[in-house]
Amino acid sequence: MDMGEAGPQTYLYGCELVAGKEVKFIPEDEDVEHQLSIRMVCVDPTTKDELQLVEVEGIGAEGTKVTAVLAALKPSTTPSVCVGGLEITPPVIFRLRSGAGPVHISGQHLVMMPSFDDDEMGEE
Amino acid sequence: MDMGEAGPQTYLYGCELVAGKEVKFIPEDEDVEHQLSIRMVCVDPTTKDELQLVEVEGIGAEGTKVTAVLAALKPSTTPSVCVGGLEITPPVIFRLRSGAGPVHISGQHLVMMPSFDDDEMGEE
Amino acid sequence: MDMGEAGPQTYLYGCELVAGKEVKFIPEDEDVEHQLSIRMVCVDPTTKDELQLVEVEGIGAEGTKVTAVLAALKPSTTPSVCVGGLEITPPVIFRLRSGAGPVHISGQHLVMMPSFDDDEMGEE
Amino acid sequence: MDMGEAGPQTYLYGCELVAGKEVKFIPEDEDVEHQLSIRMVCVDPTTKDELQLVEVEGIGAEGTKVTAVLAALKPSTTPSVCVGGLEITPPVIFRLRSGAGPVHISGQHLVMMPSFDDDEMGEE
Amino acid sequence: MDMGEAGPQTYLYGCELVAGKEVKFIPEDEDVEHQLSIRMVCVDPTTKDELQLVEVEGIGAEGTKVTAVLAALKPSTTPSVCVGGLEITPPVIFRLRSGAGPVHISGQHLVMMPSFDDDEMGEE
Repeated sequence: MDMGEAGPQTYLYGCELVAGKEVKFIPEDEDVEHQLSIRMVCVDPTTKDELQLVEVEGIGAEGTKVTAVLAALKPSTTPSVCVGGLEITPPVIFRLRSGAGPVHISGQHLVMMPSFDDDEMGEE
Repeated sequence: MDMGEAGPQTYLYGCELVAGKEVKFIPEDEDVEHQLSIRMVCVDPTTKDELQLVEVEGIGAEGTKVTAVLAALKPSTTPSVCVGGLEITPPVIFRLRSGAGPVHISGQHLVMMPSFDDDEMGEE
Repeated sequence: MDMGEAGPQTYLYGCELVAGKEVKFIPEDEDVEHQLSIRMVCVDPTTKDELQLVEVEGIGAEGTKVTAVLAALKPSTTPSVCVGGLEITPPVIFRLRSGAGPVHISGQHLVMMPSFDDDEMGEE
Repeated sequence: MDMGEAGPQTYLYGCELVAGKEVKFIPEDEDVEHQLSIRMVCVDPTTKDELQLVEVEGIGAEGTKVTAVLAALKPSTTPSVCVGGLEITPPVIFRLRSGAGPVHISGQHLVMMPSFDDDEMGEE
Repeated sequence: MDMGEAGPQTYLYGCELVAGKEVKFIPEDEDVEHQLSIRMVCVDPTTKDELQLVEVEGIGAEGTKVTAVLAALKPSTTPSVCVGGLEITPPVIFRLRSGAGPVHISGQHLVMMPSFDDDEMGEE
């Protein structure tokens, strides 16, 4: 009975960015579909008061690598920014294009069963 | 007839965080599915003017504990932040990673009937 | 033919809060389901420059009264805040927990026909 | 084949408010349903640095006129505000309750075919 | 089996605006439907501290060209703004109406199979 879920399963996602260190979101379980829904980007009490530019790298519609700026934060004026649910399909890479961080990213990791489940079809 | 609801029931959720005191969201009624949709994080008139970092702890896709930064507030510049509906499945724990609060969290407590209702199936 | 609507009907909602005066949202028409989707909370040009804390009171999952902080505004730095669609089922009460207002709240009043309409079933 | 659309058609909407001049959204084509989903309210480089209060007038659930405050902007601190998709059914009127503008409003104009299409039914 | 997708495919979109240079979003593949869901608009560390007004041009409901102001940013106070998912159907053109940029835009490029797929119907 616990296999009868329809919608995506929702898990918590969080990571921390510092200068010179990328954070990758590449789930290993390939039997299901993964998506990242990014919600909040926040500075840390230790973040220096300069512009922190968060970049995300993913796949564009032509199958090529696309980089986009996700958020620009400044501790003294804009410590938090709501991204509001930007959905990205992995592989996803986060990095700081400017600033040294730390910068915190949070959101939801969505796990979806594929529409046509081979196992289920095999059993019929 | 009042059992014929389809979508999730929506209830109001609110809590207050202060330093050194976690707030847990662990509903007791296990016959239904619960979800927390977080909307707003706000400071209080008594909150000291330093960065208030709100952390949330939940379950990640691998079944392990995940902590994520939900919001960074500062009374003088950013007294409110909209989280925009981050959905977390309980057990959920909120705490202040930095700052002494009080910080207020509000949102919706969603209650869903499971997709396959045993009682209903039993009656058929 | 004008009875054939499926989704909820959307109406505009707006109210103004001042200190010491609650605003209630308790629709009279009980034949339909009502919901309030709160979008924006804004100060007024006459609002004093101190923290305005807006509180909302509604029903929690245990059927008890729940109060939650909806927004914290300060005219000089944060005159508007987007709540992003917090949905609350009436009875709903808004009040200022701090500050004297005026504070403006806007959103959508959603009206839904119940899933099983007795009248319709009676006519068949 | 171009009549086979299911969901609403999405068009871009934009207008500019200045003091003493209302902007009305009253689509002429009455064969389809219209809705306005408001996204952003922004100041202009020429907007004076005082509180700009944007008011919207629409229809409330009792069929009466409702006015609500959509956004409060101040060029020096809050030049943009995200309204996040407030949906209003026309007739809609925007005006400045305070400030002289210009203030820019943007969003989506949604056009929906009615659920029961008379033409289609006539052809059967 | 990889043709069995139902919902829209989600790809990452990002672009950079500077004064005097429009950015166009006009996908070449016309066998599918494209939509742009705009999420974030952010300044750059090199952006001058004056109001950056981002304009978007698209198609209005009457089939005519519509321009709308998407965001107003100022590096010192508002380095990021969440647009929250404004959906625009191509052709879309972004430009700076004020300020010299750079300004970064990010969002999702949605690709939808048409409801009635001629190829599929032809094969049956």
